[in-house]
Amino acid sequence: MLEITISELDSVIRRAADAAPFLRSVEGSVLADLLDGIANALTTAKAEIVPVAMRETHLPEARLNGECDRTAGQFRNHALDVRAGRFKAVDVVTAIPDRTPPRPNISRFMIPLGPIAVFGASNFPLAYSVAGGDTASALAAGCPVIVKAHPAHPETSRMVADIVSAQVKAHGFPEGTFQCVHGDNAVSLGLVEHPLIKGVGFTGSLRVGRLFMDAAAKRPVPIPVFAEMGSVNPMFVLPGGVAGFAEGYVPSLTLGVGQFCTNPGIVFGIDSPEWTASKSKMQELAAAAPVGKMLTDGIAENYVRLAQTTCRQEGVSTLVEVTNPGQAGLAEVSGADFIKNPHLQEEVFGPFGLIVTCKSFDEMLACVGTQGNLSSSIHFGPDDQALVEILLPVVEQIAGRIVFNGFPTGVEVCEATQHGGPYPAASDSRFTSVGNHAPERWLRPVAYQNAPRWV
Amino acid sequence: MLEITISELDSVIRRAADAAPFLRSVEGSVLADLLDGIANALTTAKAEIVPVAMRETHLPEARLNGECDRTAGQFRNHALDVRAGRFKAVDVVTAIPDRTPPRPNISRFMIPLGPIAVFGASNFPLAYSVAGGDTASALAAGCPVIVKAHPAHPETSRMVADIVSAQVKAHGFPEGTFQCVHGDNAVSLGLVEHPLIKGVGFTGSLRVGRLFMDAAAKRPVPIPVFAEMGSVNPMFVLPGGVAGFAEGYVPSLTLGVGQFCTNPGIVFGIDSPEWTASKSKMQELAAAAPVGKMLTDGIAENYVRLAQTTCRQEGVSTLVEVTNPGQAGLAEVSGADFIKNPHLQEEVFGPFGLIVTCKSFDEMLACVGTQGNLSSSIHFGPDDQALVEILLPVVEQIAGRIVFNGFPTGVEVCEATQHGGPYPAASDSRFTSVGNHAPERWLRPVAYQNAPRWV
Repeated sequence: MLEITISELDSVIRRAADAAPFLRSVEGSVLADLLDGIANALTTAKAEIVPVAMRETHLPEARLNGECDRTAGQFRNHALDVRAGRFKAVDVVTAIPDRTPPRPNISRFMIPLGPIAVFGASNFPLAYSVAGGDTASALAAGCPVIVKAHPAHPETSRMVADIVSAQVKAHGFPEGTFQCVHGDNAVSLGLVEHPLIKGVGFTGSLRVGRLFMDAAAKRPVPIPVFAEMGSVNPMFVLPGGVAGFAEGYVPSLTLGVGQFCTNPGIVFGIDSPEWTASKSKMQELAAAAPVGKMLTDGIAENYVRLAQTTCRQEGVSTLVEVTNPGQAGLAEVSGADFIKNPHLQEEVFGPFGLIVTCKSFDEMLACVGTQGNLSSSIHFGPDDQALVEILLPVVEQIAGRIVFNGFPTGVEVCEATQHGGPYPAASDSRFTSVGNHAPERWLRPVAYQNAPRWV
Repeated sequence: MLEITISELDSVIRRAADAAPFLRSVEGSVLADLLDGIANALTTAKAEIVPVAMRETHLPEARLNGECDRTAGQFRNHALDVRAGRFKAVDVVTAIPDRTPPRPNISRFMIPLGPIAVFGASNFPLAYSVAGGDTASALAAGCPVIVKAHPAHPETSRMVADIVSAQVKAHGFPEGTFQCVHGDNAVSLGLVEHPLIKGVGFTGSLRVGRLFMDAAAKRPVPIPVFAEMGSVNPMFVLPGGVAGFAEGYVPSLTLGVGQFCTNPGIVFGIDSPEWTASKSKMQELAAAAPVGKMLTDGIAENYVRLAQTTCRQEGVSTLVEVTNPGQAGLAEVSGADFIKNPHLQEEVFGPFGLIVTCKSFDEMLACVGTQGNLSSSIHFGPDDQALVEILLPVVEQIAGRIVFNGFPTGVEVCEATQHGGPYPAASDSRFTSVGNHAPERWLRPVAYQNAPRWV
């Protein structure tokens, strides 16, 4: 890993561009061997990496062990698809020479975009950082990767980068296949703006994600940015879904000190005696939740500030006050006050929940709004079918994944994963940053017309 | 069709948004019936439409008859796919309740983006206008469409719009399913910027395409713009491909008065006695080509101006001078002078060819550059295999379709079509605006997790 300045960036990016032709034409089985090699090396080094990551991120051992397994699993998943030729999928139309006009033979298949800049997240030091989902999917697509390491876990980043680079070398791939750099904001923007960079993967805040989107859109040749940004992952609790909701909700809200992109930050319920009892239960559980240590001092300070700001908004009453970083918080507001104040839709990154109590189902519907989310959840009982049928198409407009009678934390990494939703949850809702479809972000189709056999 | 002002635009767009839920949930067979109905109605009205289009566009009858068939064919192609459920393709992962943690069932499938704004092209008054490829593919994806009619063929646009609207009504679809408007530039930009518009399809100039791209990127909620813009579709002629090249090239260059997006505007050859003879043949054929009437006065004026500007660049010698609109033109420049002057890479819309004579294969390689194209063609003989293997990966970087020993005009509309290449040929090289894959532009995935059976 290199600590670089903006003046050194060009040679790093050129090294990546030089590796692109090798990656474009390498056999799928060779590429799959590299991906499997990285997976195995990460698993082997788990006992060394996890203690370092624990120290740097304050995340617990079990979580980081699981994250390391998931990270390796992402590479193995993609290796299976690469070996099966899935990303080279070909549409073939055969020639009809005696048609008027004659039909040529045409083969359409996918090729890699080229060098990709990846910006790791602080909240997933393994699964969404140096060797995280963006890196794994871009390599699987045959794109060279330059990772800008997140400053919140530099030593973890260095260890993982060394593991990946060693595998790149051992498998005979060019050095520019994978590079990891440290640098300041000028380096970050320099990556997004460099003419040889063909795409960007980012996980982080809306502010920085939008900055990168805007910079990429203003380039002489614009490039796609896949930014996974803020999300409040709203929960809609219908009358039949109230029983037992609180007992599932608070653990999901406080999991990992609320630092998941799928954290369920806003809950909509309809006023009733049962809902009042459920709120009391949520209040009791949130007040009793253990105080966790957050990822960074900056995140911790922001959390307290934003939670307190929310509690000061008009009509908001505090149920569990946030006085310390990492402490669970809970507040309540009416549907009418929620609709009036767009600030209440903003994400509070951490274990803070806003309960919106609506006076009717119609008011709940009116609360859905238009702001995009990674996920949305609907809780309901057998008698709520008619309400679900009204609510679902509205909620579908603002989410990439809809969870029925469940909680959004704990994303299954598989071929049916959709992690990405309407803006601002993601920059482009047509793709996913997690799961088997993730490499599709880094490919473009090419058609060969009337190609000779030897091509 | 409505001539509207910016103040009336909102109600048009709201009508489209109101139609979106119907289109999202309509049965595939019902949607396919609408698409087939439009295809049949266009075919039935061909004898009425074509004379009007001939008068408005100066395109010949045979061409417009073919274009009308192609337009109907696009709807029929998509109807087949919609009937087969192709765009609703589902990834399903079944639950494993006794795994730790339990795996939920997840279904991932595609849903329409919502109301789409379509801007028709002047050069395809039927196949890329009111009921053209963008409209057909967006409807096939289940998106309501608002077409901004091209002012170059208003009466053709009105007739086609009336046909589509009548079918929308006859098949019981809401009025907002398809609307066609006339309006000024404020209306165009108002469409791109309206919060209820979820995507844009555009075919036309780089200037306007980029304007729409920039406007869409600056929205509070950015949306995708699929702009198909300029392309010079370079031809690379290797030594074994020289024989017979001129006889194929000039007809392709002058087809439809050179007003195809796939028009082959630049030819690269390697200096040799055979190449000199080929140039003489091209000169002879271009000088003898009939003068055609161009689509609009603006296009005609631009053509003469740009062709003459090219001929005045340093090192350029005129082989066939353009003095009148619609007249074929030809010029020549050395590879060295071509590389020095980026203006020579710019498209001259019309039947104007620039021959770049390189002193070696290496100079030809250096001429490829980085500017994106819809297509690129390689002409070669049996002895050129080694050169093709060097040239192909370089040319692949700048094109969406590669034609071997052929010419790019005459795009086959099929499942293997790739019409879209690196910028500035298209705004997003990962998609195609023609062929069976075109509706993929207007869809996004949603995952349902743990959904009950009745959903």
